[in-house]
Amino acid sequence: MKPLAQQLFARLREAGVDCTFGIPGDFVLPLYAAQSAAGMRTVVCTHEPSVGFAADAYARLKGLGVAMTTFGAGGLNMVNPVAMAYAEHSPVLVISGAPEVGGRHADLRVHHMVKDFDSQRKVFAEVTVATATLDNPGTALTEVDRVLEAVVTQKRPGYIEIPRDMTNVPAAPSTHRPTGHDGEGNPEALAEALREIRALLSQAKHPVLYAGVGVRRNMLMAQAVRLAEAWSLPVVSSVLGKASFPESHPHYVGVFVGKVGSAAAREAIEQADLVLTVGVINSDVNTGFGTFPIPHAKQIIIDERDTLVFHHRYEHVPMTGMVTALAGLGPDAPRPAPAVRKASAAAPAAPVPRADGALTTDGVIAAVREVEQSSYSFLSDIGDAWFVGLELDADVFMAAGYYATMGFAVPGALGAAVAEPARRPFVIVGDGAFQMTGNELATLARLGVDATVLLLNNNNYKMLEVLDQPREYYHLEPWDYVALGQALGAAGERVTTADELRAALARAETAKGPYLIEAMLDPHDDAPIMRQLKQLTAAARAGA
Amino acid sequence: MKPLAQQLFARLREAGVDCTFGIPGDFVLPLYAAQSAAGMRTVVCTHEPSVGFAADAYARLKGLGVAMTTFGAGGLNMVNPVAMAYAEHSPVLVISGAPEVGGRHADLRVHHMVKDFDSQRKVFAEVTVATATLDNPGTALTEVDRVLEAVVTQKRPGYIEIPRDMTNVPAAPSTHRPTGHDGEGNPEALAEALREIRALLSQAKHPVLYAGVGVRRNMLMAQAVRLAEAWSLPVVSSVLGKASFPESHPHYVGVFVGKVGSAAAREAIEQADLVLTVGVINSDVNTGFGTFPIPHAKQIIIDERDTLVFHHRYEHVPMTGMVTALAGLGPDAPRPAPAVRKASAAAPAAPVPRADGALTTDGVIAAVREVEQSSYSFLSDIGDAWFVGLELDADVFMAAGYYATMGFAVPGALGAAVAEPARRPFVIVGDGAFQMTGNELATLARLGVDATVLLLNNNNYKMLEVLDQPREYYHLEPWDYVALGQALGAAGERVTTADELRAALARAETAKGPYLIEAMLDPHDDAPIMRQLKQLTAAARAGA
Repeated sequence: MKPLAQQLFARLREAGVDCTFGIPGDFVLPLYAAQSAAGMRTVVCTHEPSVGFAADAYARLKGLGVAMTTFGAGGLNMVNPVAMAYAEHSPVLVISGAPEVGGRHADLRVHHMVKDFDSQRKVFAEVTVATATLDNPGTALTEVDRVLEAVVTQKRPGYIEIPRDMTNVPAAPSTHRPTGHDGEGNPEALAEALREIRALLSQAKHPVLYAGVGVRRNMLMAQAVRLAEAWSLPVVSSVLGKASFPESHPHYVGVFVGKVGSAAAREAIEQADLVLTVGVINSDVNTGFGTFPIPHAKQIIIDERDTLVFHHRYEHVPMTGMVTALAGLGPDAPRPAPAVRKASAAAPAAPVPRADGALTTDGVIAAVREVEQSSYSFLSDIGDAWFVGLELDADVFMAAGYYATMGFAVPGALGAAVAEPARRPFVIVGDGAFQMTGNELATLARLGVDATVLLLNNNNYKMLEVLDQPREYYHLEPWDYVALGQALGAAGERVTTADELRAALARAETAKGPYLIEAMLDPHDDAPIMRQLKQLTAAARAGA
Repeated sequence: MKPLAQQLFARLREAGVDCTFGIPGDFVLPLYAAQSAAGMRTVVCTHEPSVGFAADAYARLKGLGVAMTTFGAGGLNMVNPVAMAYAEHSPVLVISGAPEVGGRHADLRVHHMVKDFDSQRKVFAEVTVATATLDNPGTALTEVDRVLEAVVTQKRPGYIEIPRDMTNVPAAPSTHRPTGHDGEGNPEALAEALREIRALLSQAKHPVLYAGVGVRRNMLMAQAVRLAEAWSLPVVSSVLGKASFPESHPHYVGVFVGKVGSAAAREAIEQADLVLTVGVINSDVNTGFGTFPIPHAKQIIIDERDTLVFHHRYEHVPMTGMVTALAGLGPDAPRPAPAVRKASAAAPAAPVPRADGALTTDGVIAAVREVEQSSYSFLSDIGDAWFVGLELDADVFMAAGYYATMGFAVPGALGAAVAEPARRPFVIVGDGAFQMTGNELATLARLGVDATVLLLNNNNYKMLEVLDQPREYYHLEPWDYVALGQALGAAGERVTTADELRAALARAETAKGPYLIEAMLDPHDDAPIMRQLKQLTAAARAGA
């Protein structure tokens, strides 16, 4: 029997993991040493919240990401990013060291401990789909497989705790039997559903594919493209599902955000007589805060587990089988390619420059849309940065589009760069979020990651002011972000006009290592989606 | 009936809170507005982990600290500092906003949410002594009082969640009845215990007071001084209890860390025939990782709840009553003041300068010991910074001395500065910890806090290397910390020799705002306690 840790890293490698993210600490040191011996790469971040975000971004692209930290001070500092992975269906595995099992007794109080030895696992049980403490060499690998299966099939985080003295014990082989989440479901139900949906799609005059994050989580991107092409469907994506369908594809229309965001996407949904919804997670954000629900009567919903046609449900007809089958079919008579209005954004294509030449959010959007968008991995933080990101046509795009935490984008770029090294990360981040986790720029610099980091600086928690009113406590100190970046090893510059931004973006494109562009924005300037939200709010108040 | 929030802030003010720490976010905005209307001051930090640490430091000095954040992305990013407050007995109250109660239903998924509306409260239940969700205006204030009482009497964190639509509802008066934790306990048991302890103390030839963190948590610092003076006791403190007894006092000997640390403290414990232990939390760290347990047969242990004499226990004889009573007594015949060897530190008083003039940890300790130590609030982060801190004679000292998380000291200085504005915070922090939360320097600068921040830069997770061996993944990038500080609004300088450090400390003492001193240390140089630990480890290996 081989040592537990050695077998664990072999299992992770089989599952497609070629790099973990973490911060070493005493209870996890033997595991780090074993990882090193196993030839597994690791990226050490500066702070545990960043570890979770980096592993999450990696998981979104590769199907599994690993965050490895020490007990207590390490693991418990990662609850927020793991909660986000739960909310947004990202398959992140947390591996934590822990105090030795041998010699534990009720009165013993070791450092890094909270209430008892099980406190940390219980905390993670609230934000994961499966947890295990590997305190038995006979069952440890079976437990690893149980947690891994839950993470990989449910696309949500799991938690494994390894007491320090268990790291290298000889561990019995796994006896885990997969519980049969094979993505195929019930073949008879699938055949029946397929017949009905094929007929409905064939009859529909204006069918639309509404692609959600489930498409990417189940790695169905290629099948979704074939489906759209076979049936000549225009494609709208959900907020969280942005770029689950490649946005450089001619069928792509835009992101649907209810009454805000892309007018073209809204019109496509509005005018559709059949909406084929795949892998969309319903949330308040998804429909522009409930401003535009899609009626059941014209919607087919294909999910991880079931397929729903209008009001009747086919159980155990999950998306992998259904999307693959539909992609292999097509209408009896070939259809012309859909007419797609590509002016997909809420932003004006050519924004009016401000008289004083100052940079506006519209100007930022126009400038970023001029870069070769399909070549980047875009990562947007929340707030205005997210609203800018939603205006782009990206083939890879990540944001905390449902959980809406701040601080994801800069550390997320680490995960994106490691998972898809051929793509240059392009981070869009507000000053508030950058103050939280922007120091991870140093890790990007250490790894020599070529990345563009566009910091939108309005010296404010802008979203909060819009939701409320100007308050002293929404004001952010004007840090010298360019100097900060330089102190961390990243080159950069400050821009105040659209022309300067264009020139900076061109310089960033060929820069070695991370390149920080601090774009100075008027705190009173609004992103296009923000303008729409304000109008809706004002209209609602006037009506009330 | 007044609005809930208004009554809540009135209760907090009664409990001695004059400032909260937090970051606003949508679900907590009405509570922030109510706080503003109530005239309660708040300090907005840059990142939630810092919020928790700042509130903790404030709580340690004032007896109650408040951390106020939004739901999910805010609250769940604060689990680690709250876990530390639990482990180290710090009375921190977490107040979190939450989604509206009205309109909640099982299928609704709002942003910032994890499994269900109760997930966050359940997470905090694992790291607090009491939690409440204020979803009922009839019981809300009673619940507030229940949680507050638990926090204040048990000196551990509590959690209150306020749904957004409950913030300003008229709330019924509290019907909470205090459960009688009055610190007095059972008067008959107290009288009996007092008689026995008085006789034992009178007979003892070499009694010692061993003061723990409970002395400070129960605000018994003045009584402890009277007790030591009345009975002519030399005073040794525990690791976590450092500076619970003023270290500028002539009776103070040093911090007891088992076989490492202060030789004088070890000898005082060793030679004592009676150790009067007050409020010491037992942990692996406290006795130098078990290197030097104090025998029961010569120990009286006075705790929050009971008093233990050798092997017999007086139940409900808590420290407040016992210490106060003992301080009012004294031996029949007056005793001379104890002979205290003041060379209390493990460090040599006059370190040997290095031939190349480079700065050593011994040199740092000697230089800091030359400042007027009793005038500062010292905050040490963990690792070498902590080992330096343990060598000082401080009247106010804070560190994660049991939970051992990184990142406490810089944000902790915010709490210390607000709680005791007359004292200048003096932060000692390693580069690893500074990379986690050092950006809070910006908040110190914004508030105009005059503080000295001494950053020990050895470009390494030094502790881990000592515990293990040199590894590539323990290496930290050499950031330009002085430039970083300047970008955040803090002046500073880099020093490489002991003389430069002395000059910098003098400049810092009169600087306005935070002043960062980056002390460049050889990564192979060791703190004195670290040298001792290495020797012990080597001896143990040789013996094994």
